[in-house]
Amino acid sequence: MQIALAQLPGIEGNIEANLDAALSTLERHGDQVSLVVFPETHLSGFAEQDHVDDRALALDGPEVARLIQASRDHDCALAIGLLERAADGVYNTTLLITPEDGIALTYRKTHLWPDERELVGLGQRIGVTRWRGLTLGLMICYDIEFPETARALGALGTDLMLVTNGNMDPYGPVHARAAQARAQDNQCFVAMANRCGEGAGLTFAGHSAAYSPLGETLFEADRDAGVHLVSLDLELLNRARRDYDYLADRRVSLDLQRDDDSRGPGFRLI
Amino acid sequence: MQIALAQLPGIEGNIEANLDAALSTLERHGDQVSLVVFPETHLSGFAEQDHVDDRALALDGPEVARLIQASRDHDCALAIGLLERAADGVYNTTLLITPEDGIALTYRKTHLWPDERELVGLGQRIGVTRWRGLTLGLMICYDIEFPETARALGALGTDLMLVTNGNMDPYGPVHARAAQARAQDNQCFVAMANRCGEGAGLTFAGHSAAYSPLGETLFEADRDAGVHLVSLDLELLNRARRDYDYLADRRVSLDLQRDDDSRGPGFRLI
Repeated sequence: MQIALAQLPGIEGNIEANLDAALSTLERHGDQVSLVVFPETHLSGFAEQDHVDDRALALDGPEVARLIQASRDHDCALAIGLLERAADGVYNTTLLITPEDGIALTYRKTHLWPDERELVGLGQRIGVTRWRGLTLGLMICYDIEFPETARALGALGTDLMLVTNGNMDPYGPVHARAAQARAQDNQCFVAMANRCGEGAGLTFAGHSAAYSPLGETLFEADRDAGVHLVSLDLELLNRARRDYDYLADRRVSLDLQRDDDSRGPGFRLI
Repeated sequence: MQIALAQLPGIEGNIEANLDAALSTLERHGDQVSLVVFPETHLSGFAEQDHVDDRALALDGPEVARLIQASRDHDCALAIGLLERAADGVYNTTLLITPEDGIALTYRKTHLWPDERELVGLGQRIGVTRWRGLTLGLMICYDIEFPETARALGALGTDLMLVTNGNMDPYGPVHARAAQARAQDNQCFVAMANRCGEGAGLTFAGHSAAYSPLGETLFEADRDAGVHLVSLDLELLNRARRDYDYLADRRVSLDLQRDDDSRGPGFRLI
């Protein structure tokens, strides 16, 4: 399976430019790969004081519709972050968009970074969906620093964790170590696309990466903007679990409440 | 704080030689360091088919008594593995021995490697103890491949996780990644002493290591036998938790039952 990590800069609040960058990435690479991962809140830029509502997008609005159309045009799925305008507030959300289903999975960040806790709502569900024989799960930035987030996805059978990332200096190595461990711990692939360049007063760390179910580094980007194609050998999913199976061997469960929906199994945070 | 990682070979069933190696390590280095970490089941060697009872040691027997005396003589704590002969069977156990208390903490491996499941009993408790201002916790080999084991120790306030390891080829890199992530995830030190050389039909991977509460590698050994002194800057415990505190920020708890005893707080596995 061929995927792309779109390590792009973003512009806070310039939704048109951010959307154009995503569409042009799909235009250039969508026919070569099955799936493209974009950074955290790529469409909106980050929420900042006095700039939350004006950057938020409705999931049934024209921007998401254009991405769904591009997904169909190129037969290519994508994971992309945005600020989601919902009935009860704004969320830091990542969408999995597939050619078959449009929005196949919606995930609201469950572990908010200190700066954003006053700005956006807290996600309460961790869920997965099946797509073309694989179980896919989503995480956003700070989520991956907690082994529990990935373990919840692992317990739901995730084969490929997609991380929309907005990680800044000096935390690049922290996310590399975390993402690699999450792949190894759950014997699944992790594909993480980080933002690069500057914005919201931060310098983003780049270093988008992919890790195998054996915990090995498949690819690691530098700090510059670029779209990186990575090949995932799906046979490694079986190979990783052949001699020992962490999910079967673990002794301690997570304190979560099962919460399946029409898209697939999930957990509700208690 | 100065510690030592005793990366030693062991001999299955040759308790006298294994004990001598431990005592001579304490003799040579015990006055220079506060604590020495030895490998998994160092005193006994590994349990093997038809060689379980004959390698098991009573905790109130003469071998442990000699280690307690050496700990007092050198004012040096130690974490050391053995096969423990208990009333209800044999366990893969690690002892924390301190000059003040003798056996300050007993930990029975909670995640048994496939080969040993028919040979030894399964540990049911994860606990910690306070020693000279630090909270110490123990893990044994395969335990560290599960983020839950370390998280349980982290939730009990562990500052320094001591790993008695018996990791073999080709899994050296797996344990390096796991141990490093456990330090970062729980913003604490991890000190891991692995066996080296050959035994029980295996080649042990060495690569004993120590990681900081920031997740950084403080030290990593090669594959050869050696006692490695590592300095732990305890101020890093505060520095790691200054900007964000994972234990405070985590959203998902472990499904464990609190089980404190006279040595300190703990969890019972459910």
